[in-house]
Amino acid sequence: MSGVVYPKMAVIGCGLIGSSVIRGARAAGVVGEIAVAEASSQARERIAALGLADSVTDDPAQAVRDADLVVFAVPVMAMGPAAKAAAPGLKAGATITDVGSVKAAVAEALAGAVSDDVFVIPGHPIAGTEQSGPDAGFAELFHNRWIILTPQVRTDAPYGEAVARLTAFWTALGSNVETMDAAHHDLVLAVTSHLPHLIAYNIVGTAADLEEVTQAEVMKYSAGGFRDFTRIAASDPTMWRDVFLTNKEAVLDVLGRFTEDLQALSRAIRWGEGDKLFELFSRTRDIRRGIIAVGQESAEPNFGRDHRPPEDTDTKPQ
Amino acid sequence: MSGVVYPKMAVIGCGLIGSSVIRGARAAGVVGEIAVAEASSQARERIAALGLADSVTDDPAQAVRDADLVVFAVPVMAMGPAAKAAAPGLKAGATITDVGSVKAAVAEALAGAVSDDVFVIPGHPIAGTEQSGPDAGFAELFHNRWIILTPQVRTDAPYGEAVARLTAFWTALGSNVETMDAAHHDLVLAVTSHLPHLIAYNIVGTAADLEEVTQAEVMKYSAGGFRDFTRIAASDPTMWRDVFLTNKEAVLDVLGRFTEDLQALSRAIRWGEGDKLFELFSRTRDIRRGIIAVGQESAEPNFGRDHRPPEDTDTKPQ
Repeated sequence: MSGVVYPKMAVIGCGLIGSSVIRGARAAGVVGEIAVAEASSQARERIAALGLADSVTDDPAQAVRDADLVVFAVPVMAMGPAAKAAAPGLKAGATITDVGSVKAAVAEALAGAVSDDVFVIPGHPIAGTEQSGPDAGFAELFHNRWIILTPQVRTDAPYGEAVARLTAFWTALGSNVETMDAAHHDLVLAVTSHLPHLIAYNIVGTAADLEEVTQAEVMKYSAGGFRDFTRIAASDPTMWRDVFLTNKEAVLDVLGRFTEDLQALSRAIRWGEGDKLFELFSRTRDIRRGIIAVGQESAEPNFGRDHRPPEDTDTKPQ
Repeated sequence: MSGVVYPKMAVIGCGLIGSSVIRGARAAGVVGEIAVAEASSQARERIAALGLADSVTDDPAQAVRDADLVVFAVPVMAMGPAAKAAAPGLKAGATITDVGSVKAAVAEALAGAVSDDVFVIPGHPIAGTEQSGPDAGFAELFHNRWIILTPQVRTDAPYGEAVARLTAFWTALGSNVETMDAAHHDLVLAVTSHLPHLIAYNIVGTAADLEEVTQAEVMKYSAGGFRDFTRIAASDPTMWRDVFLTNKEAVLDVLGRFTEDLQALSRAIRWGEGDKLFELFSRTRDIRRGIIAVGQESAEPNFGRDHRPPEDTDTKPQ
């Protein structure tokens, strides 16, 4: 493949994303030594058992010593404290990046925590699953997914070289790299990720709280559409709490638009305006076709999950 | 398998569901002759080309002649007119059923359209995909999915036998059969299917209308959660318009609850109430676990769609 891009990589926080970065980097052969700092002793045990890293510690400063690349993969609000803890160990010329879902707040936290001789290049891979923890990661998670880098506004050559190197790293992991202004990232992701999660968490909560419909009924008849929402509503609670607290403005902005549109839809239902409903329901199809066309979604019906051979699917519930 | 349950079955409307009923019934060997009535000439051509039925016509009265079972598989608001059109051809003792997503309105429309010597047993298989038309159907669609029958309130033995026969039919197609009051069905499905579709249509519409974020960006970065919603927002527009117009009361009721909950969530974000967010985000996980436990969802991350071998997933977008 590409050869070693970073002789030593340190990953701070080794859950779904951190462990996938490690697996992907190992598979691509772009790193030499791998050090992990992880706060949870249970996770550290799993990381050791899985043989993910050359060393595992609870001390970020120790893990980052001599590292050429440091990837912070902790919840968004833990980025600043983690970077502060790592700072004493960072070597001059190291690149630090992250995988957080919010960029403006994280960019500020990272830059504020480390000295000026370190290259800070915030990043966000648009990839994940609803699962959490080091066991949930896999090397192919970033294949054909976008990684958005939000570099600092500076034009010096060494920083430009550091961005090019990080771009080569993510490309080797199978990602498509895009750069963007942090504020624009936070607005785009509020639409394509944060609002969908908020809506999914909310509808699953609403369904759980109804008095007239039992939870058993909700589960039994979920194949009518509800189950699609439960996937992202099963994502890591700490991570998502942090996203909403740190991208408040953009989230409330798009949520306001969503609510306004929903009220218009509600009114159309109440007054029996079939034409309005039909018009909306027709144009939303094109967006999905577009997503499939740009390679970000499976074209198979039901995401492919129900299209298995009959012998796999005819197990009855107990 | 079960042997022939109905010597002749007529299917009125042959799209995703109608054609799946035919394929499933054929595979299970539970019907002899199959007749189809379909209003679209284009669909009739496909049905003939696929060899789905023994006869294809645009006249429901002709298709149902001598049929022992008639399955109405047209959009909800077309059920009444289709049943009226079929009525002159129905034989005494025939069973008529349907696959509509709303039951109270359809039950009334069917019962009002046919004479008393026909057994009316409304039904709703909780199964489907986002695709439409006779080519989209497949025999395994109903495997391990629930079919809800909402029989009329009558205790005579012949009607009971007709319900038992229809139950045997659906069981042979791989379904689990449940009976329920039509009004309760409409409330349960408002939660597990109608509200999810409404929300999905709405968020996809909101995302398409934003000025600050381009549609290209929405598509590129949809793997952050948004793409999950686009699947059900690609469902048949006519079918869904009819659902909202005929199950108005229950939909507006659960939509009101959803909106109330969403406003509380919005307030929690605005005031930085992390504990409230964390609490909701934690308990929604259990619902998904429950759905997986009752066999209505895949346990694989990302519905299994991204967990293919690397060689299938590393195609780059153009």
